[in-house]
Amino acid sequence: MNPHLSFNEADREAVYRVIAERRDVRRGFLDEPLPDDLIGRLLAAAHSAPSVGLMQPSRFIVIREQAIRKAVFQIFEAANRRALDSYSGERAERYAQLKLEGIREAPQNLCVLCDRAHERGHGLGRQTMPETAIYSTVCAIQNFWLAARSEGVGVGWVSILDPADIYKLLNIPDHLTLVAYLCFGYVAGFASEPDLERFGWEKRVDAKTVISYDRYSEDCVS
Amino acid sequence: MNPHLSFNEADREAVYRVIAERRDVRRGFLDEPLPDDLIGRLLAAAHSAPSVGLMQPSRFIVIREQAIRKAVFQIFEAANRRALDSYSGERAERYAQLKLEGIREAPQNLCVLCDRAHERGHGLGRQTMPETAIYSTVCAIQNFWLAARSEGVGVGWVSILDPADIYKLLNIPDHLTLVAYLCFGYVAGFASEPDLERFGWEKRVDAKTVISYDRYSEDCVS
Repeated sequence: MNPHLSFNEADREAVYRVIAERRDVRRGFLDEPLPDDLIGRLLAAAHSAPSVGLMQPSRFIVIREQAIRKAVFQIFEAANRRALDSYSGERAERYAQLKLEGIREAPQNLCVLCDRAHERGHGLGRQTMPETAIYSTVCAIQNFWLAARSEGVGVGWVSILDPADIYKLLNIPDHLTLVAYLCFGYVAGFASEPDLERFGWEKRVDAKTVISYDRYSEDCVS
Repeated sequence: MNPHLSFNEADREAVYRVIAERRDVRRGFLDEPLPDDLIGRLLAAAHSAPSVGLMQPSRFIVIREQAIRKAVFQIFEAANRRALDSYSGERAERYAQLKLEGIREAPQNLCVLCDRAHERGHGLGRQTMPETAIYSTVCAIQNFWLAARSEGVGVGWVSILDPADIYKLLNIPDHLTLVAYLCFGYVAGFASEPDLERFGWEKRVDAKTVISYDRYSEDCVS
């Protein structure tokens, strides 16, 4: 192999390590805003994600105003009450104890949108699978998440929100699709296991249980 | 900052570099199959992606059989002819010259599926935004792509396919959603710019044009 092709061992290990040590963070955010240049680096990493037809459909709103974060928290609370009502017994008790957002504690939030019908890219790759525009934006989120982990910045994805409420609050036009709402900031530490595993909600399964070969096989799949 | 929190400078640079140097690869695959343990590392990296409620909904089919890859190529060809018909003039000429898949040249393909209604995760985070199950699978794809880049392995996402044809060919049950079809393998090199830019289809825009602050602003957005 051409040595320029692959990364050296230390660099390759860093890549695998950032993937393994990334966490969905909803607690332990420090009350110290991130410098603008750091936020810029993270968003540049997001923006350089793969995009179908090179359309670069992702749009980002960096939210720092406390009043807005407080209003988003209220939107979360309403949705979370409805979610809690859907569980019963021990499962409801466990759900109630989980901390599922860090909207107010994190000095920054990020609303991630997709302009799914933008003319950039001239529709290439979107005729048979138009959903790839939104998938491009999700790739951008994962880039953001990994770059953040390498900078000691925790990121949490909050999906317990009614998107319609967020559109109104943030003046988002209808032609954009809300893909994600994230909280992010410096943290006191990263847990070695996912919170949902630490607090008894769910356990991870082995990768071998989700792989088949040549054709789909139910045997290998959990 | 706690030094354990953030990566050291060299490791952080490796993370940013893998993000910047990842390419959508459809040409230049070497006729040298990847070792099983390398494929295993890439899929483990994919499987450790964030997933809503820790549901780990992604399913992977590693395709190496030549007859299957040939059949997938025919599915691509039919969709690509229809796509070409939708362009006219100079744009059609440019489209016809693009190489948009490496299905037969790459010794491996990967079909990525999502079991979007799986009970694992107990529905957490999916009540207001059920689409987050599929987004979890897209995060897994981006992990795979970045880990592959660090190993000198090129990955190309082929979305010019009729999903219904792929379901039939690979025996995929209806409850799974086809999220992506990838070709991957060792490559002779990685281009410094995206192919769609090199071959005049589209140009990248600056990250600054897609960022607003606190509320959505049309001003900053291209």
